[in-house]
Amino acid sequence: MAVLAIDLGGTKMAAAVFTKDGHVMQRATHLLEKRTGKAVGAMISDAVRQVLEGTEKIETIGIAVPGISRRQHGTVWAPNIPGWEDYPLLEEVRAVAGEIPIHIESDRSCYILGETWQGNAQGCEDAVYLSVGTGIGAGILSGGHLIRGAADIGGAIGWLALDRPFQSSYISSGCFESQASGEGMAKVALQLLSADADYDGELKKSTVNAADVLEAYSRNDRIAVKVIRQCIELWGMATANLVSLFNPDRIIFGGGVFGPATRFLPDIAAEAAQWAQPISMRQVKLSASGLGNDAGLYGAAYLALQRRFHA
Amino acid sequence: MAVLAIDLGGTKMAAAVFTKDGHVMQRATHLLEKRTGKAVGAMISDAVRQVLEGTEKIETIGIAVPGISRRQHGTVWAPNIPGWEDYPLLEEVRAVAGEIPIHIESDRSCYILGETWQGNAQGCEDAVYLSVGTGIGAGILSGGHLIRGAADIGGAIGWLALDRPFQSSYISSGCFESQASGEGMAKVALQLLSADADYDGELKKSTVNAADVLEAYSRNDRIAVKVIRQCIELWGMATANLVSLFNPDRIIFGGGVFGPATRFLPDIAAEAAQWAQPISMRQVKLSASGLGNDAGLYGAAYLALQRRFHA
Repeated sequence: MAVLAIDLGGTKMAAAVFTKDGHVMQRATHLLEKRTGKAVGAMISDAVRQVLEGTEKIETIGIAVPGISRRQHGTVWAPNIPGWEDYPLLEEVRAVAGEIPIHIESDRSCYILGETWQGNAQGCEDAVYLSVGTGIGAGILSGGHLIRGAADIGGAIGWLALDRPFQSSYISSGCFESQASGEGMAKVALQLLSADADYDGELKKSTVNAADVLEAYSRNDRIAVKVIRQCIELWGMATANLVSLFNPDRIIFGGGVFGPATRFLPDIAAEAAQWAQPISMRQVKLSASGLGNDAGLYGAAYLALQRRFHA
Repeated sequence: MAVLAIDLGGTKMAAAVFTKDGHVMQRATHLLEKRTGKAVGAMISDAVRQVLEGTEKIETIGIAVPGISRRQHGTVWAPNIPGWEDYPLLEEVRAVAGEIPIHIESDRSCYILGETWQGNAQGCEDAVYLSVGTGIGAGILSGGHLIRGAADIGGAIGWLALDRPFQSSYISSGCFESQASGEGMAKVALQLLSADADYDGELKKSTVNAADVLEAYSRNDRIAVKVIRQCIELWGMATANLVSLFNPDRIIFGGGVFGPATRFLPDIAAEAAQWAQPISMRQVKLSASGLGNDAGLYGAAYLALQRRFHA
C-alpha cells in the first residue's frame, strides 16, 4: 500500500516511495547530467522499474514535470529539456508499470498539492503556490480542484499584466516575470546600473543575479533597494490579484527566490492589502513553503493518492 | 420534470420554469419597487409558492442573487438590497419548497453557467463571463467547476491590480472597477473634463454616464476617445490575466456596458494579445453574451439541473 512519486526537474530527478500517510519509505536523487530527449525518459523508466522490482507493493504512481502535462495525449512539454516539446512520457512509463495507474502533472500544480498534504496549506481546498525562481508560475487549487485550463496551461501567472503601458521588454516572458522573477530582478538591476553613472557599489560588475541583489539589499545598496522595492510592489499586486480572483485560505511562496525573499512577506502582504478585495484579503494567510525543494515530490505522491483513494 | 429558476436583481426579479432541455415553459417578471429586507424575501417565496401550486412538477430550484451566496450558512449578501447583509434566503425558500432541492448562487456565476448551457459558451468547461456594468465581476468556470473561493467571494475581478502605483481613487472599489466599469468611465470622464479648460464638446454638462461617453465616442469626442482608449487597455489587460491564469476556451463579455461596447471586442483582443500567455491567447475566443439579460435566469436553471442530474 504505497505510492511512487517522481519529481523531474531541469537538472535532477527525485524519486520516493511514500506510505499513504506521507511517510517516506525510500528515496533517491539522480542527476540528469547532460541527458536530453529519450535519455531522460529512459532515466525515469529505469527508476520506476527499479522501485517496482523492490519489496514495496506500489499501487499508484505520480510524476511532477517541469512544464506542462498534456493529459489528453499523455505527453509533456518541458522547455528546459531538449527534445521534450511533446514527449510521450505516459506511454513510456506505462510500458514499465503495466496496470498501475500513472498520473503526470505540472510541477507548479504538484507544489500546491504537496503543501496542502504535508506542508503549510494542510487541509486547504482553496490555496495557491506562487513559485518565484528563474521564472514565475502558480499552482492553484480552487474548491479542491486544480486550475488546469482547456489545454493544461493555466496558472501562467508570469504573464500577469500589472504595469501599463505595454513595453517591449514584456514580450518574451510577460510583464510580471520580466520584472519580478529571479532573472527579471537581474535584468532590472542591470538597467538601473546602466542609468546610474555615479554608482560604485557591490553590484557594479559584469554579471548580476538575484542572489547578488538580495545580498546587496541587506547592506542597503541603493540599486538593490530599488529593485527589491519594485519587486515587492509587483509581488504584492500579483498576490492581490490571486486573493481577489480565488478568495484562497492560503498563498504559499516558494521557488529559488523565496527562500531568501521570505523575509519580505510582511511587506508583500501590506502591498497586497492596498489592492485586493478587502474581505478576501483579511481571510487569507501568506506563508513560506513548508516543504521547500520537496514540494513537487510530495505533491506528485498526493496527486496519485488522491486519485487512488478519493476519486 | 421541470426546473424553477429565479434571477433576483437590484430592481426586479425574473422567474421561469424550464424543461431540462432549456425550453422556457412559463416566465414572469416582478419589480422590486421599494421593497427591502424581508419584503424581498417574501416576494421570492410567493413566486416559488405560486409556481409550485401550478401544474408543472418542479424537481429542483435555482436562484441567482445580486451578490454573494454564503453556501455554508444558506445566507445571501446583496449590497444593493437594504437588509440583505446576511439574509437567510435558503431557510425561507425551504419553508415553501419543502423537499425540493434549492441551489443559490451569485449572479456572476450564474451568468457563465447560463452561457455554457444555452448561450455563447455552449459545452465549454473552461469559460469566463466578464460582467461590466455599474460594477465589474467575473463568473469563472474551470474544468467544469465554478471558482467560488473559501468564503464564496472569488471572481471579484473589479479589484484587479493593473495600474501602479496605487492611488487613493482605487480604495472603494478597486483599481480595475474604479476606472473601467460604467461608473468608473463616468468618473474618469469627469476628471478629464475638469483638466481640459478648452473643451466645449457634448460631455460638458453636470452629470455624465457611461452611455453618454459611448455615444460621444461615436462622434469622435476627444474626452470620450481618451476614456474609451483607457478602458480598452484595462479591459484588454484584465482579459489577458484571465487568459494566462485560466487558459479558457471562451471569455464572454456582458453587463450594461457590453452591449454597446461589444464593438470594441477586436480592440480588446488586440490589447490582450500583447500581454497574455501566447499559446493560451491563440486558443481563446472572445464573444458577446448570447443570452443578454437572461444569462442569470438560464444560469440559475442550469445550476439546479446540473446538481439534480449530474451530481
